[in-house]
Amino acid sequence: MQWDLGGCRSLLVTGASRGLGLQMVKDLVACDSGARPDTIVATARNPAAATELQKVADASPGVRVVALDVLSQESIEQAVEEVAAILGSDGLNCLINNAGIHMGLNLETVTADAMKKTFETNTVGPLLVTKAFLPQLRAAAAQGSGMGVHRAAVVNISSSLGSIQLTSEQLAEFKAYAYKTSKAALNMVTRCMAVDLESEGILCVALHPGWVRTDMGGQRAPMSVEESMTSVLSVISSLTQKDHGSFMDYLGKTVAW
Amino acid sequence: MQWDLGGCRSLLVTGASRGLGLQMVKDLVACDSGARPDTIVATARNPAAATELQKVADASPGVRVVALDVLSQESIEQAVEEVAAILGSDGLNCLINNAGIHMGLNLETVTADAMKKTFETNTVGPLLVTKAFLPQLRAAAAQGSGMGVHRAAVVNISSSLGSIQLTSEQLAEFKAYAYKTSKAALNMVTRCMAVDLESEGILCVALHPGWVRTDMGGQRAPMSVEESMTSVLSVISSLTQKDHGSFMDYLGKTVAW
Repeated sequence: MQWDLGGCRSLLVTGASRGLGLQMVKDLVACDSGARPDTIVATARNPAAATELQKVADASPGVRVVALDVLSQESIEQAVEEVAAILGSDGLNCLINNAGIHMGLNLETVTADAMKKTFETNTVGPLLVTKAFLPQLRAAAAQGSGMGVHRAAVVNISSSLGSIQLTSEQLAEFKAYAYKTSKAALNMVTRCMAVDLESEGILCVALHPGWVRTDMGGQRAPMSVEESMTSVLSVISSLTQKDHGSFMDYLGKTVAW
Repeated sequence: MQWDLGGCRSLLVTGASRGLGLQMVKDLVACDSGARPDTIVATARNPAAATELQKVADASPGVRVVALDVLSQESIEQAVEEVAAILGSDGLNCLINNAGIHMGLNLETVTADAMKKTFETNTVGPLLVTKAFLPQLRAAAAQGSGMGVHRAAVVNISSSLGSIQLTSEQLAEFKAYAYKTSKAALNMVTRCMAVDLESEGILCVALHPGWVRTDMGGQRAPMSVEESMTSVLSVISSLTQKDHGSFMDYLGKTVAW
């Protein structure tokens, strides 16, 4: 094990029904209880259909599955209430905005609808979710000092495909107008929130988890979901003030905006 | 006069009813006919209400006012037909995606609707307009060599507020979640198009026109619209291959992504 999240008492990850989100929950429950958050809130658009996540939660008392559709303000508000009832006055230490969609659309095939739907899910979703959980993040932040997941942090799962700089360089072959714009926009949201939440001690970062063999990443991807998640959890557990407002990859290296 | 657009036979600017777009048309018609495009297509959502633009056009035979609402695919397609009838087989040398909106919304006041509306206008609009005018840009590009407005160029009017890097630095005081994300996303669209259109000789840049005293920029802005536009036209007229895919300001200086 290369990470220790023992200092983080509560963690919420969106989009936990499959892919990276599901793997994160699996990894967290598989480790010593001293190295993981006491409470792991795993959200899914439709928990009833998230059978694998439910199985993990059934076997692990610390895992709570909550319905959350990032496209619905009503759903977000219900989730906030439910999580507030679970976490109480301790608040939420770590919010991981992981839910996202990807459509591989090039200049010819990209449509206004695809652009808007992807932006709404990948950019507006994390913004609304973070806004809604701010009272709980603030409650946790008020009880700590320094910066990191032991206090309060927002981790936005971005992608190196959201790097405007790299788009013309090593990533030029990947055509994904909707996805790339949504992740560049998410990076901007991260950076804006970093400015606004710094004084309250809430750390904000954008994190590229690697190109991973998930439903989204496809089978051509070089990394397994297990490899990615071990690295991602290591980066998350090591976050400090110097990482605030940055765009990092799964090795903790800075990615160009 | 610090610029010469004589090599650019046709130019289209969106959002020309006021602000920077209107000033561009005024500046272009005020100069020697040898230093300006033969045909200037000035688009506005509602030409009937664009009285100042109509006045300029009435006095200048080279200016054609065309209705274009970047939020409507139907309107875009009608504009494309109308412009094709005006320009014929010469095609379009320079497309300036200038139309945009700005709402000054901070973390507390920003809403999903504001995020989506701004993204649709400022990011999706330029993408759809560029896609729709590609046949005309390609027709122009096929007749030239090198890169620049003498051949074919797409200039996306962005903003330094769209710089993710600068957000935590000198621009930290400007709270504008919707606008900033839309412009960062527009920069990504610019960069994606730069990769895809390079082989066809179509130059793509994102351009920060300065902080200008317009309806959008407000009265606190340090630059007049006249100052800004002289600089912007100078940068546009000087664009070459080395600027392709870049984010520049009104002085031609690179802006960080």
